[in-house]
Amino acid sequence: MTTYEEAIELAKRRGFFWPSFSIYGGQSGFYDYGPLGVLLKENIVKAWRDEYLRLGAIFIDTPNLSPEMVFRASGHLEKFSDLAARCSKCGSKYKLESLLKKAGIADIPTDVKQANNLLENISIRCEKCGAEIKEVYDFNLMFALEKNEKEASRLYLRPETAQGIFINFRLLSNYFRGKLPMAVGQLGKGFRNEISPRNALIRLREFYQGEVEVFYDPEKPGFADIPVFEETTFLPMDHNEKRMTVREASNSGLIRNPVLAHFVFRTQKILSSIGLGDGVIRFRQHEKNELAHYSSDCWDAEAKLENEWVEIVGISDRASYDLKRHAEFSGENMVITDGDRKFIPSVVEPSFGIDRTVLSVIMVSIYTRENGSKVLKLNTSIAPYIASILPLQKKDGVDVLAKDIYSSILETESRIQYDESGSIGRRYARQDEVGTPYCITVDYESLEDRSVTVRERDSTKQVRISTDSLKQNSGHLATYLDSLFA
Amino acid sequence: MTTYEEAIELAKRRGFFWPSFSIYGGQSGFYDYGPLGVLLKENIVKAWRDEYLRLGAIFIDTPNLSPEMVFRASGHLEKFSDLAARCSKCGSKYKLESLLKKAGIADIPTDVKQANNLLENISIRCEKCGAEIKEVYDFNLMFALEKNEKEASRLYLRPETAQGIFINFRLLSNYFRGKLPMAVGQLGKGFRNEISPRNALIRLREFYQGEVEVFYDPEKPGFADIPVFEETTFLPMDHNEKRMTVREASNSGLIRNPVLAHFVFRTQKILSSIGLGDGVIRFRQHEKNELAHYSSDCWDAEAKLENEWVEIVGISDRASYDLKRHAEFSGENMVITDGDRKFIPSVVEPSFGIDRTVLSVIMVSIYTRENGSKVLKLNTSIAPYIASILPLQKKDGVDVLAKDIYSSILETESRIQYDESGSIGRRYARQDEVGTPYCITVDYESLEDRSVTVRERDSTKQVRISTDSLKQNSGHLATYLDSLFA
Repeated sequence: MTTYEEAIELAKRRGFFWPSFSIYGGQSGFYDYGPLGVLLKENIVKAWRDEYLRLGAIFIDTPNLSPEMVFRASGHLEKFSDLAARCSKCGSKYKLESLLKKAGIADIPTDVKQANNLLENISIRCEKCGAEIKEVYDFNLMFALEKNEKEASRLYLRPETAQGIFINFRLLSNYFRGKLPMAVGQLGKGFRNEISPRNALIRLREFYQGEVEVFYDPEKPGFADIPVFEETTFLPMDHNEKRMTVREASNSGLIRNPVLAHFVFRTQKILSSIGLGDGVIRFRQHEKNELAHYSSDCWDAEAKLENEWVEIVGISDRASYDLKRHAEFSGENMVITDGDRKFIPSVVEPSFGIDRTVLSVIMVSIYTRENGSKVLKLNTSIAPYIASILPLQKKDGVDVLAKDIYSSILETESRIQYDESGSIGRRYARQDEVGTPYCITVDYESLEDRSVTVRERDSTKQVRISTDSLKQNSGHLATYLDSLFA
Repeated sequence: MTTYEEAIELAKRRGFFWPSFSIYGGQSGFYDYGPLGVLLKENIVKAWRDEYLRLGAIFIDTPNLSPEMVFRASGHLEKFSDLAARCSKCGSKYKLESLLKKAGIADIPTDVKQANNLLENISIRCEKCGAEIKEVYDFNLMFALEKNEKEASRLYLRPETAQGIFINFRLLSNYFRGKLPMAVGQLGKGFRNEISPRNALIRLREFYQGEVEVFYDPEKPGFADIPVFEETTFLPMDHNEKRMTVREASNSGLIRNPVLAHFVFRTQKILSSIGLGDGVIRFRQHEKNELAHYSSDCWDAEAKLENEWVEIVGISDRASYDLKRHAEFSGENMVITDGDRKFIPSVVEPSFGIDRTVLSVIMVSIYTRENGSKVLKLNTSIAPYIASILPLQKKDGVDVLAKDIYSSILETESRIQYDESGSIGRRYARQDEVGTPYCITVDYESLEDRSVTVRERDSTKQVRISTDSLKQNSGHLATYLDSLFA
């Protein structure tokens, strides 16, 4: 099993991602995407978005900065906090939950009072200086801006993209001509002042979210139909792990809300299409005391990474919590009329942690060949490059032909690369390590009969094809090359 | 000529963009992109990015939040400010430059001392209360976060995406194996606490930038070749307007740095491809006293909007300013070795204001038909939707066939829409107003012979084609439909 360390090392060396601000000593919780990471992330985002586009979703894009009133209404100002613990001797700060979990304590307190009671009865020691920790406090996870004398209200960096959709509900509903269900998505940044960022892209202070708010009429929800798809593992809050399809989980009432179940299925389908299928993913229901303040039920898609299960998608039943709160605080009308019936829509929210998904995909894709070299087994649909064009010789016109093939494909498909530096073995190894499924080599024979060799990454099998058919198929290069080795 | 008001009204009504947080009274300088705006923006970004991809550029993605040291080194902490003026009677605040320009004063002071001298000799009155304004101060445009007790240094929201590229120079140069020129781009948010936001997307506090940093060897710059392209208007700092091609502007020395000239050409080419061609755009050289602190020369691409010229792209000669400063402040080695010669690369930066470009495209595209209805004349390459599928009847299987055509095209092309609500005239008008170049209507005849009618937006000409050829060409729908009316 790949460790975080291995994945982070490969990611930095090959240009997927690396810690930000390293020339200034770094800043915990911030990462840069390098050239390959940008491409991988975009392809993953595309898989996410295409699935929702086919469902008729629309996408909006709202600011990272928001005035205080938004989070007063949403409840984040009051409730979006973690319990933190401070060592009164050396000043080290911890997320209380992590300290207690390490000490084997399963029953995590949910407020400062409970936590104080607990710490009076047990001894938890500071990891730095060894002193006993007794000090617990609430730590709001939102970043606030310095208050500007010009502004009437303070600005915050949003902790989730969702609120930008809720506060626009009336406008969006008009755009949909009042029809439900209505799915509105947003890809964007969220910001959380995490007490202890960790494991590169797993817990960042600034991160990408792909959130969809699905507004529906609780009496006519729609989305009831869940196709049969591969079995998966469910861990409901009663801790009795079960194997079944999402359709069965919905029909049997394991997932109570059928709309929520539908989006557990959509999530499973998206994850499976990017290489996070059964065996890697499980769906775990939140315990009552871990639900966010806006959520009445929540199932996480978790990926098995190193030795832990990590949340990468949360599918939450927000019911009408957010719309009601914003109606109350703003006076805006959030009511939908169906005939004579008036109601505030319910909301199910599948929320993708994009960065975590990127890291998960890399971690489950790394394997080692018998000769010790590393390979990234990415699906063609999400690999940064579909193919790399490699001239076997850099002279006698071989490179000229290779460049010509490269430029010609580039007109319709940008996910290709040209590489002429180093031995062919080294170039194959380089492409293997960044997950390029196909290497196309051009050689002396190519000059005579205009044929080229296509090498497939995982089998290392080779097929000879004509440059004409390569060029003709450049409009759907991925499926064409996949079909040669199917 | 379209006014800001007209464009903003259409944009809000049709779902391109609207002021953020309106249910809470709004927040000056923030806008949301609606469903159509997200699509238009993405298509414009694609045009920008594809041009640089073809030049071999790579793209990275770095955080919005940065520690103070980055901006201490870049000079933003000290120098990135505007002169502001405050009315000591009513407290109203202004950008000094705007106040003076309105009063017809062309010679804008560049520091507080000069400004105080000026205001002693002339009378500028507060636009709100009429009192004389005498108070001037420096206003740093960066947003700072509340200092967190945990952090050693304060965090700022970046005022430009560029610094995220400069501080990664060594890593990126290793990725390029030390070769120059090297073009590194970034699409992302910038944040500036503008004293007076205005005109919707023109001056925002949170905005999208598409920046490319082109690193080159000043002794072997590359990029010297500038193809012949359409003539344009140049306004150099001597105020003598000239008409010529960018190639001529470079050869004649009007644009001194040939690398800068090359990226003026690239900018012209991108803008022209999205409908901002000659007649709409001019290139204006910055005056000495308006250059940013990092810039030794700068040409802006300006668009003529309403009655003013508005900067939408800045092409700046940053020379080795940024790399030298970061080398000095961080100790990082920013030197490139060519044989025995060691040097710090020079940088030219074409920086696109994406939001301004989106608004400019909308404003120059709006026209009114003789019957009074509005049309958005967007190029097919950037229109939110290439085509809309419209069943002429909602019964007898016409709608079923229309939906079948829609689903079939959607498998390969997501930029299409299905619309069955309202009369066909109303639906045409709706599509005209959002810039959809083609409407495809399905009728009773379609049921018999499987033909459909394609209507072109600007000419309103109609052509009858077979659904088979429509489906066969869905992989390149835009060029296929364009070709029917060429």
